[in-house]
Amino acid sequence: MPDERAELEAIKRHFAEDRFAATSGVQILELQRGYARAALTVADRHLNSVGTLHGAAIFTLADLAFAMACNSGGRVAVAINTNLSFLKATRSGTLMAEATEVSRSRRISTCTVRVSNEAEELVALFQGTAYIIEEPFPPTASRMQA
Amino acid sequence: MPDERAELEAIKRHFAEDRFAATSGVQILELQRGYARAALTVADRHLNSVGTLHGAAIFTLADLAFAMACNSGGRVAVAINTNLSFLKATRSGTLMAEATEVSRSRRISTCTVRVSNEAEELVALFQGTAYIIEEPFPPTASRMQA
Amino acid sequence: MPDERAELEAIKRHFAEDRFAATSGVQILELQRGYARAALTVADRHLNSVGTLHGAAIFTLADLAFAMACNSGGRVAVAINTNLSFLKATRSGTLMAEATEVSRSRRISTCTVRVSNEAEELVALFQGTAYIIEEPFPPTASRMQA
Amino acid sequence: MPDERAELEAIKRHFAEDRFAATSGVQILELQRGYARAALTVADRHLNSVGTLHGAAIFTLADLAFAMACNSGGRVAVAINTNLSFLKATRSGTLMAEATEVSRSRRISTCTVRVSNEAEELVALFQGTAYIIEEPFPPTASRMQA
Repeated sequence: MPDERAELEAIKRHFAEDRFAATSGVQILELQRGYARAALTVADRHLNSVGTLHGAAIFTLADLAFAMACNSGGRVAVAINTNLSFLKATRSGTLMAEATEVSRSRRISTCTVRVSNEAEELVALFQGTAYIIEEPFPPTASRMQA
Repeated sequence: MPDERAELEAIKRHFAEDRFAATSGVQILELQRGYARAALTVADRHLNSVGTLHGAAIFTLADLAFAMACNSGGRVAVAINTNLSFLKATRSGTLMAEATEVSRSRRISTCTVRVSNEAEELVALFQGTAYIIEEPFPPTASRMQA
Repeated sequence: MPDERAELEAIKRHFAEDRFAATSGVQILELQRGYARAALTVADRHLNSVGTLHGAAIFTLADLAFAMACNSGGRVAVAINTNLSFLKATRSGTLMAEATEVSRSRRISTCTVRVSNEAEELVALFQGTAYIIEEPFPPTASRMQA
Repeated sequence: MPDERAELEAIKRHFAEDRFAATSGVQILELQRGYARAALTVADRHLNSVGTLHGAAIFTLADLAFAMACNSGGRVAVAINTNLSFLKATRSGTLMAEATEVSRSRRISTCTVRVSNEAEELVALFQGTAYIIEEPFPPTASRMQA
């Protein structure tokens, strides 16, 4: 399905413009319908005051994977609730976030995101709920100017 | 209580070293026992790909207020779960996060954080659970080197 | 506003028909726009296998207060996510749940519920998100037969 | 491992004494280390005021599977936070809850519970955090009298 592939590529490019995630060092790895992967390589600026990876850095990683997965249907989905459990402290290395859309109705998308380290240990678990709006995603240029 | 004030000042200074929050532009405003306030002034780098304040920026703000409130007892408290509801889209201005420790047992601290805009509208609501370790906070220099 | 009072009374009567909550012993105390209170008096059947009040009994109490608060606007609101923190073990007495709708947009209602004991200590804290449907609440008899 | 099997059987028997879950009609199906299954057959008393399965009945089912999974390690684990997303309305049939302990440290157990219907559609998704106490589970008779 070349059209679907082109649409997913457009969505990926759109998320590459996400300044907060990009500034934080989150990298987009993969996007399919209802599925996304992103990564973060831990650097000094990601550490909290006790020297472990900041919870907000983990959230930023998980949230980008969530946003990609729930918007991968080609309609704007807006996050309304997120739940994040921190399972294991991290000090270095690369973390991987894998988001799966576990349920999608006309209006609500629910995703889970597993964040794991290079040893494939689960570091954090994220559950996200998004509200789906009647608008195409990514928004067209004319809409964005409006 | 000058000792308590000195202890709270030391905790505040410690959080000022939180690189991820500082890099993100979060400012510490106030710290009392079981209570903290922080602020974030929205800039271009905080926006997501559709031009509204990024959920991860809101999390970073709320999480710092949570971390300060649950560590304000003078013992290390580690976040284990956070729940964040997004209530209102934001495009500009300064957001305020106000964290209150609503419950503290020997081992568990539970906090709520209200994030509001300059019109005092609620923008996001955060609930956080932390596990309290038998170690003083902030850690002493010798501990940090160890 | 006699009309609003009549509408709220109709909503209250409708929730009195909630069989699961009624069977569980939850009592409706009060309903206003965006606000509800309910109570549960702990009995043997509410205890878990270690003799404390069952988390599911606390959920049942908090959830009824949440459902009343988010449906008090006169439109059907369906729960999509709930977060519940257990703060204090309970063995006896009467618990009170107080639900407040902290945010309401056209489609999403967000409520918090505080569950406290007779000593006014916080026993549990609940955060609920509901999706609002374009249908009046309570449903009319003809609708219910349909 | 006959000893492990005997221990798991003792834990299962203990949960069979959970009055709230039993009164609600929840049935225990299976228990392994870090894994549990339970079921609920929908009856009239489980319906809410609009005729669908009550969220609190779903919670009661998911919570029992969670409690079994996090206590299956043979130490008392106390729920501190639960997050439940409702994905699909249910009116009849049997629901199955499958709990998996995704992470266990010395003090914290984190479980996910998938609730599905007979068509194997996901009906609800639950994430639970428990605090592990230094006490054997199930408690011995002498302890229970103490």
